[in-house]
Amino acid sequence: MTSSRNTVDDEDTFKILIATDIHLGYLEKDAVRGNDTFVTFDEIMKCAKQNEVDFVLLGGDLFHDNKPSRKAMHNCMEALRKYCMGDKPILFEVLSDQAVNFGNSKFPWVNYQDENLNISIPVFSVHGNHDDPTGADGLCALDLLSCAGMLNHFGRSLSVEKLEISPVLLQKGSTQIALYGIGSIPDERLYRMFVNNQVTMLRPREDENSWFNLFVIHQNRSKHGATNYIPEQFLDDFLDLVVWGHEHECKIAPVRNEQQLFYITQPGSSVVTSLSPGEAVKKHIGLLRVKGRKMNLQKIPLHTVRQFLIQDITLMDYPDIFSPEQPNVTHKVQAFCQQKVEEMLEEAEKERLGNPQTPEKPLIRLRVDYSGGFESFNTMRFSQKFVDRVANPKDLLHFTRQREAKDGMRDEGIDFEALLSRPSSEVLQLRVEDLVKEYFQTAEKNMQLSLLTEQGMGKAVQEFVDKEERDAIEELISYQLEKTQRYLRERHVEASEEKIDEEVSVGGKKMLKPEGRTLGVRVGVGCKGPDRERRREGTFNGS
Amino acid sequence: MTSSRNTVDDEDTFKILIATDIHLGYLEKDAVRGNDTFVTFDEIMKCAKQNEVDFVLLGGDLFHDNKPSRKAMHNCMEALRKYCMGDKPILFEVLSDQAVNFGNSKFPWVNYQDENLNISIPVFSVHGNHDDPTGADGLCALDLLSCAGMLNHFGRSLSVEKLEISPVLLQKGSTQIALYGIGSIPDERLYRMFVNNQVTMLRPREDENSWFNLFVIHQNRSKHGATNYIPEQFLDDFLDLVVWGHEHECKIAPVRNEQQLFYITQPGSSVVTSLSPGEAVKKHIGLLRVKGRKMNLQKIPLHTVRQFLIQDITLMDYPDIFSPEQPNVTHKVQAFCQQKVEEMLEEAEKERLGNPQTPEKPLIRLRVDYSGGFESFNTMRFSQKFVDRVANPKDLLHFTRQREAKDGMRDEGIDFEALLSRPSSEVLQLRVEDLVKEYFQTAEKNMQLSLLTEQGMGKAVQEFVDKEERDAIEELISYQLEKTQRYLRERHVEASEEKIDEEVSVGGKKMLKPEGRTLGVRVGVGCKGPDRERRREGTFNGS
Repeated sequence: MTSSRNTVDDEDTFKILIATDIHLGYLEKDAVRGNDTFVTFDEIMKCAKQNEVDFVLLGGDLFHDNKPSRKAMHNCMEALRKYCMGDKPILFEVLSDQAVNFGNSKFPWVNYQDENLNISIPVFSVHGNHDDPTGADGLCALDLLSCAGMLNHFGRSLSVEKLEISPVLLQKGSTQIALYGIGSIPDERLYRMFVNNQVTMLRPREDENSWFNLFVIHQNRSKHGATNYIPEQFLDDFLDLVVWGHEHECKIAPVRNEQQLFYITQPGSSVVTSLSPGEAVKKHIGLLRVKGRKMNLQKIPLHTVRQFLIQDITLMDYPDIFSPEQPNVTHKVQAFCQQKVEEMLEEAEKERLGNPQTPEKPLIRLRVDYSGGFESFNTMRFSQKFVDRVANPKDLLHFTRQREAKDGMRDEGIDFEALLSRPSSEVLQLRVEDLVKEYFQTAEKNMQLSLLTEQGMGKAVQEFVDKEERDAIEELISYQLEKTQRYLRERHVEASEEKIDEEVSVGGKKMLKPEGRTLGVRVGVGCKGPDRERRREGTFNGS
Repeated sequence: MTSSRNTVDDEDTFKILIATDIHLGYLEKDAVRGNDTFVTFDEIMKCAKQNEVDFVLLGGDLFHDNKPSRKAMHNCMEALRKYCMGDKPILFEVLSDQAVNFGNSKFPWVNYQDENLNISIPVFSVHGNHDDPTGADGLCALDLLSCAGMLNHFGRSLSVEKLEISPVLLQKGSTQIALYGIGSIPDERLYRMFVNNQVTMLRPREDENSWFNLFVIHQNRSKHGATNYIPEQFLDDFLDLVVWGHEHECKIAPVRNEQQLFYITQPGSSVVTSLSPGEAVKKHIGLLRVKGRKMNLQKIPLHTVRQFLIQDITLMDYPDIFSPEQPNVTHKVQAFCQQKVEEMLEEAEKERLGNPQTPEKPLIRLRVDYSGGFESFNTMRFSQKFVDRVANPKDLLHFTRQREAKDGMRDEGIDFEALLSRPSSEVLQLRVEDLVKEYFQTAEKNMQLSLLTEQGMGKAVQEFVDKEERDAIEELISYQLEKTQRYLRERHVEASEEKIDEEVSVGGKKMLKPEGRTLGVRVGVGCKGPDRERRREGTFNGS
């Protein structure tokens, strides 16, 4: 494909750079890794420019933090201004009603059509779970970029009960793309919406079958719980290609879903945010070509990504080398581990040769299963030997036991004691939501709050912690207070404490439950949705 | 002037809109006043557009918070994109070396010369004390706007010991303006720099006397302490006009400094951020016209600013109405106060008539001096009567006593107990710096930290609290730790605790003192300054 590139890049062929989960600002305070995300974003955007793509399509989590630091925002804008502005003409048109596609923006049109901005490469993005809209203003970091005219944020929905997705309709020569997107939504909620037939993908009325249907989603793809993911078969079968964000493992080569007959590409993150095997897969972005209804996706390796090597060893598998009974076994195990790390370092170094853009120090993880009577040893001292050669000396070594590995995903109750002793960054990876749930389930009855729903409180706490949304809890409480007051007024309850208690305990549950369920994340924000319910049959005019 | 406007707006006349201390985001969570700053910024920028000014000049504190909320940033960018982009041609040139003027920017040129941006009204701004650069990245909110191409942030200095100010040289027809600016610097430090002859204002080499010299400063103008302000006579006498930011009282009509023979205009804030008499002066912005070396400043009243009326009454002054001995005196005093508030409300209402842009509810403050044996009363219940008619029911009434008023400005020690009982917003108005100073002065000797300087720690705490700079303290400590380690290494101190203690107590003070003084705010950032010292005589080439 690469060799024949020039022959296929004709006036009917869309060239789209695809990337996702760039997580700008991840570990930005780290002395070694601090600039990784910025450097790689620069590489990605430079690649877009060099390949003269028609546009860039991002699958969410451009930012790691919901409120990105000034540095992260500044670096992002710098790259966008540097690579996406200029005189290169834009060779495709937007046919859909942009006021619908970008309805949430104060400048509801695609940035390259703004006569005050000289855009050479428009960037389209949905938001991810890291950079989703929060707070009373309902804005996210992407909206700031949108307002600055640097990015086109699409795939927003204001309703939490139903989704009606109007595609951005694009035309280049004879090729037409209908671009659908859903910004990140809590999986359970989106799952429920799909199950309840509340997700509608509108289709262009004319020439329905001439469109290449491209869909961007940022959700769990692998099953994390009964409804904590989105099964592929939920998605409409008229789709041609699904770009799946959120999952960090690079599985960018399109895979056909044999049931729905569409393809899925999962570009994966461009930065290693956890030391798990999925992140060790070589990172790529994609150059998607679409002509008519045909497509081709070219994998482009990222050169600036810090190498990550991971290896598992099970001490029991080496009975010839050591057994738990030996007096100096720990010493031998240490030497063995050291040898393994040296091998990985050597492998990394070889691979890095001739790749001057790749950072010098790799990420290395050695997982040691020490079940069978072995003892672990001081990882701190062990790591000390590699402090100048690996980027992650602190968590280089990880001891596991077979039993531990089999436990799977948090099936047991949450151990708050254990949580409190962990570094906070790790704790945050457990959803705060789950902690609150656990708390409410185990708390004494008389400890429970009678007017705040478990879910509402959980969401508010989650926003407070995860998104640094300081007012989330306050907003929830004033909302609930107001609602209760309204309820009591309507029932003409007199102002005696006993009566109020009574009313609350009688009507409270009925009153609170449904909204606690459906209102979900954004407390106090009304649900505006389309009045009509259309699914699949729904058509509309591209104008 | 207004009537003859057209006749003076010729090709040699600069038209400059002057405003300062807009404090975007001030009280943005307040249900009544939350949008005030955004609405007024919109009015100001709209005014710039309607008057077809050449550029807008802001005197700092565009943002109230060092880390503006997403909403504040979004609203700001919206107004800038709406009013400052478009096809109106720019009729002036920049003659100076822009890489020097805007050296801190990744795009070191004036935004209107960027060929990818269609700017109709460039905005130039220095930063204020609220939106100054902080943190290891040394960026401020204005730098984000700069990076987005929406504003030209100038007047930055990287040195904390000396300032060398290169003006932005502007030419329109035959008129030449040399625009100088100093972004906010702690008053004491700038004072010291002036006293030590470390402030140099460079002047264009050619036609030195043909330039209109315009200077923007954001410092205390009134004396808050011996060196806690900048005396006007410190400023160079070649200046023609000084735009003084930071001071909130509108004294926009240029006043001549008879010693230095320049004029000073103090536009004042465009929002009331404290209920003090200075803020009650009607708010204005200025339309400055400069032709050759002549200028004219036209006052433009702001219509969207919430009215603020303040009145002082001294109960002792009304012996005919009430005396402390009367049995129902408090009742009478209340009725009297209520009457006064009613009068102010009436006055506000009259003034507001015919001004549909002015918010309905005014800010009202009645200061009641109850010395002479009177008693204060419950202000909460009193305010309740006006809750729907004033914007600030909570602090409508303020009781003072003569003695209290005479106490002046914090001459006594700081009462921490009293501070803790005050609302946090009020406490923050006392510099945290002062609190820390107080703490160190009064703390037991054995409580004092031996390696952290009082001033360094004070600055770090201040950054931490005021600017939400989370890493300020951590940065200070690692900096100091590293420095101490280096010092000890250089002296070949062996690793015994006693020896280290000894060395620290011997060399510590000498080692720490000077840098604690001069390094000041940004710990860990080197001081880059010009090598040569030039003052007044300094010349350079405008290119």
